[in-house]
Amino acid sequence: MMTAASGGEDALTALTTLVGEDLEACNRLIVARMHSPVALIPQLAAHIVAAGGKRLRPLLTLAAARLCGYRGDRHVALAACVEFIHTATLLHDDVVDESALRRGQASANALFGNKPSVLVGDFLFARAFELMVQDGSLRVLAILSAASATIAEGEVLQLVTQNDTTTTEAQYLQVIEGKTAALFAAATRIGAVVADRPAAEEAALETYGRALGTAFQLVDDALDYAAEEERLGKTIGDDFREGKITLPVLLAFQRGDEDERGFWRRTLEAREQAPGDLARAQRLIEQHQALRDTVERARAYGEEALAALAIFPDGPERRALADIVAFCIARAR
Amino acid sequence: MMTAASGGEDALTALTTLVGEDLEACNRLIVARMHSPVALIPQLAAHIVAAGGKRLRPLLTLAAARLCGYRGDRHVALAACVEFIHTATLLHDDVVDESALRRGQASANALFGNKPSVLVGDFLFARAFELMVQDGSLRVLAILSAASATIAEGEVLQLVTQNDTTTTEAQYLQVIEGKTAALFAAATRIGAVVADRPAAEEAALETYGRALGTAFQLVDDALDYAAEEERLGKTIGDDFREGKITLPVLLAFQRGDEDERGFWRRTLEAREQAPGDLARAQRLIEQHQALRDTVERARAYGEEALAALAIFPDGPERRALADIVAFCIARAR
Repeated sequence: MMTAASGGEDALTALTTLVGEDLEACNRLIVARMHSPVALIPQLAAHIVAAGGKRLRPLLTLAAARLCGYRGDRHVALAACVEFIHTATLLHDDVVDESALRRGQASANALFGNKPSVLVGDFLFARAFELMVQDGSLRVLAILSAASATIAEGEVLQLVTQNDTTTTEAQYLQVIEGKTAALFAAATRIGAVVADRPAAEEAALETYGRALGTAFQLVDDALDYAAEEERLGKTIGDDFREGKITLPVLLAFQRGDEDERGFWRRTLEAREQAPGDLARAQRLIEQHQALRDTVERARAYGEEALAALAIFPDGPERRALADIVAFCIARAR
Repeated sequence: MMTAASGGEDALTALTTLVGEDLEACNRLIVARMHSPVALIPQLAAHIVAAGGKRLRPLLTLAAARLCGYRGDRHVALAACVEFIHTATLLHDDVVDESALRRGQASANALFGNKPSVLVGDFLFARAFELMVQDGSLRVLAILSAASATIAEGEVLQLVTQNDTTTTEAQYLQVIEGKTAALFAAATRIGAVVADRPAAEEAALETYGRALGTAFQLVDDALDYAAEEERLGKTIGDDFREGKITLPVLLAFQRGDEDERGFWRRTLEAREQAPGDLARAQRLIEQHQALRDTVERARAYGEEALAALAIFPDGPERRALADIVAFCIARAR
């Protein structure tokens, strides 16, 4: 029986060290392939691709391939594809959310404007597919093109449920499984595909990635009401200001009285927000133990992720992937 | 020696009739494949996909495949891919250009907002790649993923050269070859690929599509200064208001005196525009015969497109594709 190790950042460092050479090769490929004679493209892409990202998703692809005993180098290019798709969605997300900060720095849309952010996102997305075509696996192309459509569906559903306090937990889960978990699931699954492993291992890595991604997003949504801005490297209260209906809000809304529901409707539906409202939202969420229960939910997905790893032999890759579960959840502390 | 027939709209009707059953199958597939459980996606997509488009690009794919003697039905799905990619770029273009009208109707961004337009564009792009993967041709995937990256590069270059009267004709041509001609070229080229024809025919159809697309965009850029709004089905003067540096402006700027250049710098670079400025821009462009020469340039590309068809046997497909050249240029009258 595996349990999540206690380590937080250490787990990320350990994983990064484990696949260090592969990650360096992946980073070199990312820089080489975001080149374009149109200088603004690498400039803008470098701002987001090269600056401060954890590279969590490509790390997952690299480690999953090694976990499956893969000894070639195709996984490096596929990890770069995953990062390009992720980066394209970040650029478009920041435009859609009107975000000013990303990883503690001015976001690309704040710095370069919305227009190039939309178009450079399109470029990176197309470039990801060019890289996949060069790799030549129709199975990988099928997985990542389906994931890309699912991400867009999740993002649109998020937009539709925004400012709507009648959103259900099922809809919320559909949003985060689309916008976040689908790419985690694809990132880990293609590790098994590139290693040509049996369907059971592919399914196990898919389950691991999906559960991990769901846990990751649940914690992210908790952090938006809990963390200090500097520590988090993103503006807190973003979800509140945008009227995003996340699990902490859903739980506090369900558990609140009529007066409190009126508060949520005014601030999230009517988007009439005054100074002090974010603080009150944080108090209500705390009072109804909505953060604790959101993280508890994340922990349950974390256990599902760990369980999925059980069919693989013990070893440094399996331990590193198990510890990443703890890392994703430890961010909430 | 082929010459462009005199027909305008007739040529489009003839082409549509020639591949009528294929086009109907393509339209059915488009409607089926833009479906999503997230209802806003087909709603928004239907607004742009189903409403009023000429379907010029998928028509080119269908006719090119038949010209190459293809007798299967794979070209139908690939024509749908081409239209999905085109639609995705239209949605993003309208966001970037802040357009209020598209084909004479309220644009998707004006009706639904910028945010869903960005995300539904992403969805359609991903869906195009899913369809290509199902078709299973890595060569088609290579052509359309490269074209998609080139389109984004052209769009970014257009943004970079916007409001810059020092833009050269070479840069302008790079913009329109990217944003428009690349997809025309890919659309016709994959007709030869799906028919498994020799490289010479693939190259000829690529040349035809690229030259036709360039002519099409040149005429489009001329129309923005010449046509009446109702006839054109788009707001005229858009390029002027946005400060886009198109060939009519480049020619008028080159041929103008210092006073006129001051006018162009004020209106396009500083974007200080007053009532009457569009009319003056139109007069200057007329006076320097910049529209005539832009259309003349389009005609030269049209001749190149016609010449590329010469290696194919005479027949209804070749005649229809030749007449489409005349159609694209006749729009300027």
